[in-house]
Amino acid sequence: MRVLVAPDCFGGTLSAPEAARAIADGWARGAPDDSIELCPLADGGPGFLDTVQAALGGILHVLPVGSPFGASVLGRVLLVERPDRAPTAYLEAADACGLNLVPADRRDPGRTSTRGVGELLLAARELGAGTIVVGLGGSGTNDAGAGMLAGLGLGPAGGPLNRGGAALAGLTAADLAGLGALRRGLAAVDLVAAADVDVPLLGRHGASAGFAPQKGAKPDQAQELERSLGHFAALAERVLGDEFTRANLLAGSDHGSHQRAAVLPGAGAAGGLGFGLALLGARLVPGAAFVADAVGLADRLARNDLVVTGEGTFDWQSLHGKAVAEVARLAGRAGVPAVVLAGQSTVGRREWSAGGISGVYPVAERPAEVRAALADPAGTLAARAARVARTWSR
Amino acid sequence: MRVLVAPDCFGGTLSAPEAARAIADGWARGAPDDSIELCPLADGGPGFLDTVQAALGGILHVLPVGSPFGASVLGRVLLVERPDRAPTAYLEAADACGLNLVPADRRDPGRTSTRGVGELLLAARELGAGTIVVGLGGSGTNDAGAGMLAGLGLGPAGGPLNRGGAALAGLTAADLAGLGALRRGLAAVDLVAAADVDVPLLGRHGASAGFAPQKGAKPDQAQELERSLGHFAALAERVLGDEFTRANLLAGSDHGSHQRAAVLPGAGAAGGLGFGLALLGARLVPGAAFVADAVGLADRLARNDLVVTGEGTFDWQSLHGKAVAEVARLAGRAGVPAVVLAGQSTVGRREWSAGGISGVYPVAERPAEVRAALADPAGTLAARAARVARTWSR
Repeated sequence: MRVLVAPDCFGGTLSAPEAARAIADGWARGAPDDSIELCPLADGGPGFLDTVQAALGGILHVLPVGSPFGASVLGRVLLVERPDRAPTAYLEAADACGLNLVPADRRDPGRTSTRGVGELLLAARELGAGTIVVGLGGSGTNDAGAGMLAGLGLGPAGGPLNRGGAALAGLTAADLAGLGALRRGLAAVDLVAAADVDVPLLGRHGASAGFAPQKGAKPDQAQELERSLGHFAALAERVLGDEFTRANLLAGSDHGSHQRAAVLPGAGAAGGLGFGLALLGARLVPGAAFVADAVGLADRLARNDLVVTGEGTFDWQSLHGKAVAEVARLAGRAGVPAVVLAGQSTVGRREWSAGGISGVYPVAERPAEVRAALADPAGTLAARAARVARTWSR
Repeated sequence: MRVLVAPDCFGGTLSAPEAARAIADGWARGAPDDSIELCPLADGGPGFLDTVQAALGGILHVLPVGSPFGASVLGRVLLVERPDRAPTAYLEAADACGLNLVPADRRDPGRTSTRGVGELLLAARELGAGTIVVGLGGSGTNDAGAGMLAGLGLGPAGGPLNRGGAALAGLTAADLAGLGALRRGLAAVDLVAAADVDVPLLGRHGASAGFAPQKGAKPDQAQELERSLGHFAALAERVLGDEFTRANLLAGSDHGSHQRAAVLPGAGAAGGLGFGLALLGARLVPGAAFVADAVGLADRLARNDLVVTGEGTFDWQSLHGKAVAEVARLAGRAGVPAVVLAGQSTVGRREWSAGGISGVYPVAERPAEVRAALADPAGTLAARAARVARTWSR
């Protein structure tokens, strides 16, 4: 049997390549005659760049950029050559604004900035990229990309754009005067934002109410951030005016001229960085689908008999736009059964079955198993894979 | 200033990508305005496959193969598509026969086998590879590739080819009867062996006398292995006869018909695995030069102002065919100064200067520094890089 091993990362324990390796290790023990092809996946969050580079290769440039608190951190630009066209640059926003860059005792999504992402965009342009793809996810910021705009040169040096989401409450139209010119300056670049979640900027599921609490915001602070980002969004869309609303019409959309950057799916990704990129003309695309396309997942499914995917926690989100859902969707199209190995699963059989998945196998169910899985994530995942292989092989 | 950071791995402490990252980290602190391009290097040994994949991308297949003692271990085949031609497969011999796969208390290069490398070659063929490149280095074997030939189907199942280097003393021509057919069966494949060292199979610098002691051989055992491998080489070359000597003539070589696989540079690499591959018609090439070519090092040097290379121990070997020497050679051609960061250095200024190197900076010189470097290899390397950056930048 030909088996494609195509997992996402396993939360904080295993990167996607490590998870793929562990699953393959176990599978080879359980079914030594199967042939195994590895295809680690990602959405736009941490691991995005490694996954793209493993599949496409490329040249890695690094440069010091601003961290969420303005210190210096090393960001990456992966440049991939294309025949007869300018190269594509891939960036991972979390390099510059990741939650892992914020010490636990300093978590404050009202103050953290995405400035470093703007500096990465400048570097990608200087390297001659014709297309720039920014992976969004895993951020410790909630500034709707305002810091990124400052990093690209918008507004005065110490202005409110560069002081985190809370400071956006004091923003005036003057602070955004250069926004149209900035957008036009990037018109020759095909700008793509690959978002890990498909939420809008504002509202109950948006950046502030839906995600800022995970980044350290208290409930009342999340509400304040919602107002600040709403003010920024309204101001920015007014400043850009028709230029903006016309350019962002979705083909065939019912919303007509009411379609705004703030309500685009993915605008709320990475603390609203998706919105900031949309202001610059970026297309917002689902990160998992983008990565699946970049690594050729559909073709790779077509030449295998089974796909094994997985992630740390298999929950309702997994079935909505995450890598596992993308695998299930494309596997269904290719007529290849898909099974899921997960650290833990909270999804019922009826749900995953309706999602096109043929089996879900949690590594840990009882508390003792959870402890064992945390102590040796690769070993316990491999052991689970070996048992599943014996069930499925032949 | 544009800086290319192109190190080899740092012995057992940092992989080449980790070393490149640490150097870049420090360099960016010391010279924040420099642009930095990463180019981790390798010879044929451990890290070969990761380095090739980082630059070229590709699809990674894994399969269980025989370990040096016949247990099962996961080997890798990286398949890279090429326009209008069959894909190229890259293998790393150490996956199947690495010294790290042999527990310290079982080190016995007289008994360890390269059988798994043969199984990897079979897998690469089945995947449709038109070119197969095998990285050689870091092996725990000394069987001259006899196990690999057995893994490809040569000789009876439990025959002497499959029992390590010592058993080759009892080899007869009958054990090698299928060798010509095996070689002809691979004639349609472009087979390349990328060797970490350029030594011949036999003699003072060869596999047994030069390298088996590092793999656990006592002096008298090394001598026995020298005789066993010599017997195997003579027998194999007699069995292949003219077919072999004709095919292995080096273009323009003075050796004429006396040129034999056993004396080819690289035949002694990976415990003589280079010789076994040459029996199959492989071209033996220097691993460091092969990798430099694969990652486009010459072009990348041409667009930078300085190259920073490095490795764990900078010694006389470093100036003879290792990655650092390759960097220095190509940098000299491109007119770009090359500096070396090394864990430790035992090379005098006159030597490295004659080797085309503009500066050598050891991380550790005094015993206390050596301890600090071992405790935090990435941190101490970065700190050294930062100081060097301040010297060289601008």
